[in-house]
Amino acid sequence: MRISELAERTGVPLATLKFYLREGLLMPGTALSATRADYGDEHVRRVALVRALTDVVGLTVQQVRGVIAVFGAPPEELFESLGRAMAHLPPTAPPTDGHPRARAALDALGWRCDPRYPAVAQLERSLAAAESAGMPLDAERLAVYAPAIRAIAEYDVANVPDDPDRALEYAVLGTALFEPVIVALRRLAHQDAAAERLGR
Amino acid sequence: MRISELAERTGVPLATLKFYLREGLLMPGTALSATRADYGDEHVRRVALVRALTDVVGLTVQQVRGVIAVFGAPPEELFESLGRAMAHLPPTAPPTDGHPRARAALDALGWRCDPRYPAVAQLERSLAAAESAGMPLDAERLAVYAPAIRAIAEYDVANVPDDPDRALEYAVLGTALFEPVIVALRRLAHQDAAAERLGR
Repeated sequence: MRISELAERTGVPLATLKFYLREGLLMPGTALSATRADYGDEHVRRVALVRALTDVVGLTVQQVRGVIAVFGAPPEELFESLGRAMAHLPPTAPPTDGHPRARAALDALGWRCDPRYPAVAQLERSLAAAESAGMPLDAERLAVYAPAIRAIAEYDVANVPDDPDRALEYAVLGTALFEPVIVALRRLAHQDAAAERLGR
Repeated sequence: MRISELAERTGVPLATLKFYLREGLLMPGTALSATRADYGDEHVRRVALVRALTDVVGLTVQQVRGVIAVFGAPPEELFESLGRAMAHLPPTAPPTDGHPRARAALDALGWRCDPRYPAVAQLERSLAAAESAGMPLDAERLAVYAPAIRAIAEYDVANVPDDPDRALEYAVLGTALFEPVIVALRRLAHQDAAAERLGR
């Protein structure tokens, strides 16, 4: 299809598609002549992903480029590709010094995580923040939270598609989109549980 | 104690304490003369809370004022006070039109939540975002996520202190501080679960 048809199919304005092409977020079509190119279903899919990452998840062009760069990696490197793609999702925490709190928590849980993985620094920062506010995450609370979170993550991972690029799409969108859902559901569960406890 | 001693005890600079007083975040001490006032343990506690809410949680002065305003309410209004205090925690979602997605999810779960509670609008927005990115929260995923989140929330609520003002402190800080912990732990659980599934 022509780029004008791609715009129609995706509902993304032509100017935006040209911006995606210029920024390397959308791969070029097959050149038919000096000024015409042909686009296919993979372009439709990519446009939808880029739009979701920018407009819905709120990533910067730079962050989307980082995610996109991982696509097309060989299937046997899927685990590493997933880690690289996820590293571009905010909050991208600056590395911390040995992240002792995160390490202690992960050791207690027996979870194997690459210490260079940004979520380790993210956990360290959030644990340090809780501690400095006088409400550290103690072992008892961790023992309640972790299995619950693990159950969610097991379901997420069990549903990863087999195709590597689809798997990356699923992982990035599923992580970013469901985090605010989880946080909102916890606040609502608080309200229902408090109503029960306080007899409303 | 004098205000200089309050600064020493809390580690918060005198200029910051005066700012808290001016902004109504810290209640005045008992006047001893036109220029001297006496501060007590309740002031030490309040300074720690304000500091945690501003510096650690990242609330604006306006938001902290909203939280603080709820303190001192009668014990029998604790449930309503908790709701009012939580309403000042970001993300403070603008009201949506009937929030049909959130309502459907809450009905499916049988959770009783005040529809004016900001977390309902927050849930609606995040469900709409997931849907528009082509990854709606389906009934199966909700049936896995909700009980896990509920287990976390039950623990949170079971540990609410009896004293109303302590309960408010606990609810506001515990909600805000542990949300990033939960989100980071999910990303790390993904990594460990993916390592297992992909045989690393």
